Amino acid sequence: MRVTVNRKAHFNAAHRLFCRDWDDTKNKEIFGKCSNPNFHGHNYELIVGVTGEIDPQTGFVIDMKVLKDLIYSEVETEFDHKNLNVEVPEFKDLNPTAENIAVVIWNKLRIKLSKDLDLSVTLYETPRNFVTYTGK
Amino acid sequence: MRVTVNRKAHFNAAHRLFCRDWDDTKNKEIFGKCSNPNFHGHNYELIVGVTGEIDPQTGFVIDMKVLKDLIYSEVETEFDHKNLNVEVPEFKDLNPTAENIAVVIWNKLRIKLSKDLDLSVTLYETPRNFVTYTGK
Amino acid sequence: MRVTVNRKAHFNAAHRLFCRDWDDTKNKEIFGKCSNPNFHGHNYELIVGVTGEIDPQTGFVIDMKVLKDLIYSEVETEFDHKNLNVEVPEFKDLNPTAENIAVVIWNKLRIKLSKDLDLSVTLYETPRNFVTYTGK
Amino acid sequence: MRVTVNRKAHFNAAHRLFCRDWDDTKNKEIFGKCSNPNFHGHNYELIVGVTGEIDPQTGFVIDMKVLKDLIYSEVETEFDHKNLNVEVPEFKDLNPTAENIAVVIWNKLRIKLSKDLDLSVTLYETPRNFVTYTGK
Amino acid sequence: MRVTVNRKAHFNAAHRLFCRDWDDTKNKEIFGKCSNPNFHGHNYELIVGVTGEIDPQTGFVIDMKVLKDLIYSEVETEFDHKNLNVEVPEFKDLNPTAENIAVVIWNKLRIKLSKDLDLSVTLYETPRNFVTYTGK
Amino acid sequence: MRVTVNRKAHFNAAHRLFCRDWDDTKNKEIFGKCSNPNFHGHNYELIVGVTGEIDPQTGFVIDMKVLKDLIYSEVETEFDHKNLNVEVPEFKDLNPTAENIAVVIWNKLRIKLSKDLDLSVTLYETPRNFVTYTGK
Repeated sequence: MRVTVNRKAHFNAAHRLFCRDWDDTKNKEIFGKCSNPNFHGHNYELIVGVTGEIDPQTGFVIDMKVLKDLIYSEVETEFDHKNLNVEVPEFKDLNPTAENIAVVIWNKLRIKLSKDLDLSVTLYETPRNFVTYTGK
Repeated sequence: MRVTVNRKAHFNAAHRLFCRDWDDTKNKEIFGKCSNPNFHGHNYELIVGVTGEIDPQTGFVIDMKVLKDLIYSEVETEFDHKNLNVEVPEFKDLNPTAENIAVVIWNKLRIKLSKDLDLSVTLYETPRNFVTYTGK
Repeated sequence: MRVTVNRKAHFNAAHRLFCRDWDDTKNKEIFGKCSNPNFHGHNYELIVGVTGEIDPQTGFVIDMKVLKDLIYSEVETEFDHKNLNVEVPEFKDLNPTAENIAVVIWNKLRIKLSKDLDLSVTLYETPRNFVTYTGK
Repeated sequence: MRVTVNRKAHFNAAHRLFCRDWDDTKNKEIFGKCSNPNFHGHNYELIVGVTGEIDPQTGFVIDMKVLKDLIYSEVETEFDHKNLNVEVPEFKDLNPTAENIAVVIWNKLRIKLSKDLDLSVTLYETPRNFVTYTGK
Repeated sequence: MRVTVNRKAHFNAAHRLFCRDWDDTKNKEIFGKCSNPNFHGHNYELIVGVTGEIDPQTGFVIDMKVLKDLIYSEVETEFDHKNLNVEVPEFKDLNPTAENIAVVIWNKLRIKLSKDLDLSVTLYETPRNFVTYTGK
Repeated sequence: MRVTVNRKAHFNAAHRLFCRDWDDTKNKEIFGKCSNPNFHGHNYELIVGVTGEIDPQTGFVIDMKVLKDLIYSEVETEFDHKNLNVEVPEFKDLNPTAENIAVVIWNKLRIKLSKDLDLSVTLYETPRNFVTYTGK
């Protein structure tokens, strides 16, 4: 009897899409205005899903306050009001696309969670674009 | 060719988190303000998903009106404007966490649906916290 | 050149509609299931609007962090996870309808704000019902 | 390491529910006001999900602009501001229920996408009714 | 001390934009695909606002159930699952733009409400287009 | 009989809060993490409201397509995927707070609209913070 518990969070950040293997012309050609060297930004909306058994005493899969605090310490303090390319070490050599940001967040949370819990990360880059990663 | 049909519904209720195995101090310690003995409450948003084959004549997996009426009779009339701990028999000995409410709703709907249909229940306790149960 | 700055906040609470002038039968007749003596509850969504001149140096009508903290101390700490009828002094003799809650919040915030600022309070009791009070 | 990329789109259309095997009385009996011969309509919200490996250079599963343009050419130009029963060939003999529209959209997009990508289609007929088809 | 109480409602309808003073070519030129003679449709979202004094006993400006029932009888039963041009008498000679629909709804509700109440009607034709009419 | 027509639009941008009258220490003290010299960013949601008489032939206050195109040419092409501080001339000497961005957008649109139309601009910086300017 496994239930998924989801918690929404939020961070604002600047980024640009940029591949180190390519010169500026190629980056501009592939990424268009998303590669603006002066950066642009987003309100990222994050949904973290944790799947597991319900504890018979608490009635919780995971205490929502514990999950909220984990997202805060692992994601919000690291990403909020930051320039992802310049200030977040994971993106020094990794293009901060929504796909890669979701995988980075998943990896940061995965090592903090008990192994009997499954994890999914959904990240909205805009209200119309979002990605999901489940580690599979 | 299986399609999932989803219907949203809504109910308001009061509850408190409370484990009968523990005294008030332990309940307060574990559940914090969610264990307020005077209760607090939520606008619960419910999404019921039913998966099955499309009927070639109606073009329906299930008639949405039938599903809407089922949610009304099984869930809304039982939970809406109620105190879950005091007035809903399923929670007399079960802590009304979002996880447990979702499982109770799933069980109530499951027995009313044909066996060739799969069922999922997603319950928003707040716009930022929600759970999903699929019976697996 | 006056601009309105709006901040959203959130609290969960239990309540019942109840008029002290009437007996239980009359309360039930007028308020129906909203008068359930065991209480029900809501996720209240609050939008506080503050209108004033833009400060030429900060570019702010009011620092959003100041407004957020004010809503937290005046409204969220007082109302969140509470039973409005039982635990919030303003509703000891006042029926906690959405209308009256909005007026109470407006009065609590009004005295904390500079007189050259205008104030509006919008309160969602459910996603389909909301009220606005501007002090006029 | 497979990630799902989702893109939202929108179209408005008129339709009526109608099964060619039945006379008007039977259609009216089964579909009620949804079978109004003068048609009614919806703002359809569409979410297209594409699952695949992240390209190590672009950081994309699929370029969101490519996906957006594909939805535009295959779905929006065909369905937007149209009468589905009268003007969209796929529904000449197929009842335009949300289920069937989702399958038709899935089939139109599937043949345009690389075979190593998985595809899901979620279609909101109203804010309260939506369906998902994944081709399984 | 006047408070505005708002109630959301919903109806689906087909329509086409069409001015009787013009021939088909001119209609097509002015209204484009919105003038499709086979109709298209929308999920209309309606917000009705009623402003007045709070009754000291009920704590209501207007009983939300009364307002909900009024919207149902005056608007939903008349417009829902209808073809506005063909089946709604008010639009026999009036182009069913969002502006005109809002004014028609306002007029239908205005005569049913006490004169000491102010009325506003907001109508969403799509999630991105909406209009407001206050009778001024 | 004046009606307000509203159109939603969207742009993504990077910015930092920064007052030229102050040194870095003072900027950091007043604006906190919003003054990060490497920038952060937002998905700005914009609602433009235009109030006027309904044209008796078109049934429009303003053709929504005209309004949409105006927002595109005046706002989206200038602000979308840009660094507001670095690339948008209006913010060379003006702090790009939500308040100031709303006033700048209002001024850009005002001169393009007929004088008998009233204009309002609402700008969401995040889903929880938004401002409105009406030119009064």
